[in-house]
Amino acid sequence: MSVTAAKGFRAAGVAAGIKDSGNPDLALVVNDGPRRAAAGVFTSNRVKAAPVLWSEQVLKGGQVSAVVLNSGGANACTGPKGFQDTHATAEKVADVLGLGAGEVAVASTGLIGVTLPMDKLLPGVETAAAALSGHGGEKAAIAIKTTDSVHKTAVAEGAGWTVGGMAKGAGMLAPGLATMLVVLTTDADLPAADLDKALREATRLTFDRVDSDGCMSTNDTVLLLASGAAEVTPEYAEFADAVRQVCDDLARQLIGDAEGASKDIRIEVVGAASEDDAVEVGRSIARNNLLKCAIHGEDPNWGRVEDPNWGRVLSAIGTTSAAFEPDRLNVAINDVWVCRNGSVGEDRDLVDMRYREVRITADLAAGSESAVIWANDLTADYVHENSAYSS
Amino acid sequence: MSVTAAKGFRAAGVAAGIKDSGNPDLALVVNDGPRRAAAGVFTSNRVKAAPVLWSEQVLKGGQVSAVVLNSGGANACTGPKGFQDTHATAEKVADVLGLGAGEVAVASTGLIGVTLPMDKLLPGVETAAAALSGHGGEKAAIAIKTTDSVHKTAVAEGAGWTVGGMAKGAGMLAPGLATMLVVLTTDADLPAADLDKALREATRLTFDRVDSDGCMSTNDTVLLLASGAAEVTPEYAEFADAVRQVCDDLARQLIGDAEGASKDIRIEVVGAASEDDAVEVGRSIARNNLLKCAIHGEDPNWGRVEDPNWGRVLSAIGTTSAAFEPDRLNVAINDVWVCRNGSVGEDRDLVDMRYREVRITADLAAGSESAVIWANDLTADYVHENSAYSS
Repeated sequence: MSVTAAKGFRAAGVAAGIKDSGNPDLALVVNDGPRRAAAGVFTSNRVKAAPVLWSEQVLKGGQVSAVVLNSGGANACTGPKGFQDTHATAEKVADVLGLGAGEVAVASTGLIGVTLPMDKLLPGVETAAAALSGHGGEKAAIAIKTTDSVHKTAVAEGAGWTVGGMAKGAGMLAPGLATMLVVLTTDADLPAADLDKALREATRLTFDRVDSDGCMSTNDTVLLLASGAAEVTPEYAEFADAVRQVCDDLARQLIGDAEGASKDIRIEVVGAASEDDAVEVGRSIARNNLLKCAIHGEDPNWGRVEDPNWGRVLSAIGTTSAAFEPDRLNVAINDVWVCRNGSVGEDRDLVDMRYREVRITADLAAGSESAVIWANDLTADYVHENSAYSS
Repeated sequence: MSVTAAKGFRAAGVAAGIKDSGNPDLALVVNDGPRRAAAGVFTSNRVKAAPVLWSEQVLKGGQVSAVVLNSGGANACTGPKGFQDTHATAEKVADVLGLGAGEVAVASTGLIGVTLPMDKLLPGVETAAAALSGHGGEKAAIAIKTTDSVHKTAVAEGAGWTVGGMAKGAGMLAPGLATMLVVLTTDADLPAADLDKALREATRLTFDRVDSDGCMSTNDTVLLLASGAAEVTPEYAEFADAVRQVCDDLARQLIGDAEGASKDIRIEVVGAASEDDAVEVGRSIARNNLLKCAIHGEDPNWGRVEDPNWGRVLSAIGTTSAAFEPDRLNVAINDVWVCRNGSVGEDRDLVDMRYREVRITADLAAGSESAVIWANDLTADYVHENSAYSS
């Protein structure tokens, strides 16, 4: 599993002392080749953390030999000093592993606006390098956790090749990528351009459609490294599908572990005039705090409360610019069409809300396009966790 | 105070039995003239309640003789039956008061997707008509409450003329108007065109800049009725200023009474390249759940928590399309510039969070335009109130 499922990779996760808790906080992933092709997708937030600015430059070369990741500090909004620290981290990894710093990607997660304790981080790089192993994927996945309750890994097998990955993320999850770090590895042999295409297609349909709390991060990073160690070059479509499978698996794990959440909400918008319309409507529903509260609170008796919450769905749809007629909108909750033609539909007492997954289907009756957005409910636990957050 | 502060108006508030609680739920406001000029502003939500669709037509005539308002049911997403009910309500008011239904505005608030109990509402209209009084403004303001903890009224005095008003609203507060009903009255003598101009200018800068929870309602209605009973025609600027004063007063009361809120957050965006940029950034900050939680949770010790929450402000700014350079952004919390040039600024321990009002100042350093948006914190009480809502 994780980033060492594919041949040609070693990884490690250690406690460098960046976190006061003493928990693991530094991960290293090394591509031993023979190939070093790589692709990356980063946050669309215009306020980007120093490691994002650095890694964007590294990926322009299409080659990554190693990735160093730390939790316990995002190194975001830290000014020139923050960028110097990221650069020094990459240089340290390069020195220890005998690489060029220009092939070392850096990723950080944790608190914004705090500079990293370099006196602990740099020695930690040496400790991690000494611990590198072809079985170190799990430890690496554990070392990048912040408020994650579990570490997250996934794998997909091809014919003689593998795609594996790890992810962290439990809050500030929103389109344009969640606060999350993801590293995917494969031993398939593909050029950087194919990796980039496959990764962008996959993130667009998976991580970019996760919207836990509408808050976009400054540090989001998704990397795909190919070692070519399997000496196999799969069909592009087959490979792209495997990458999407792994991304989808990890994205679902992110939603399932979102801070304070008690429900995973699958919002499917159908009958849209365009995919963009479907996504806009899905996100508007996903970000409606009143609806997110209702889904939390009415478990298991959604149907019994006085307020038919499909009204909150309609009021969310009504704020978008998507093509639709209000009196043609249909809404289903867990497959019960509680709203028909913009008004009262089937008996909402038929809706069973006992399970963690809640399915909202919004039919715009305006076309044949669709999209799925994943969200979470809004709970008192979310409020508590985020009113007293520390890494 | 309220809608009967101005000469030429009578009002009443009664319990018609629309609410199961037996609390007052029907209000009537009558303009006895001699003038009946009126203006209205309605929700920009594309899913509009039946009374909004009706009243929009009424206001096209520029004349309103009476307004009937009910709480206990929004009559939104109720299909053709809902519109018939609104029409029947207007006809009933017209019959009882000897008016034309085309001069009777209707407003409703409460649960979405529930049809009104007309067998109780129509007799209630007769009761309200019998109770009409030149001192009925307070009772009318009380009758339109839903989850409001207090009724809301305001008044501004001109030279020989008066502008008074009432409002309801405690949740689903967002730009494009909050879930709120507002009726303003004046005894000044102005044509409908001037009333419309003054009302739009005022709502743009007051109600439209309230964003309690990012949720836009289906029922928002703001009406301004002029009786001319003072036989005075003030300077337009003087009158417009009085209307804005009353709207601002009522808007602040709405924020101060928002569901579950423990903080009123005044977000001022300065140094913007345009007013639109300032408003976009202000709303993005106002809707950031992580920040809203932080402001709630860190009272009174915002500064002591590990997470410097100005980072959450920057990440919210970073999601906008406004003109700015990340490394030039400055953020002040209660006048302490905790973020300078996109990085750590003054010591955040200097921030005093003991008071209900929290002031966030975001300087985009990109121009000279500015805007103020009012928001609330996100609390466990909000979650609770909205996970078990009933009128």
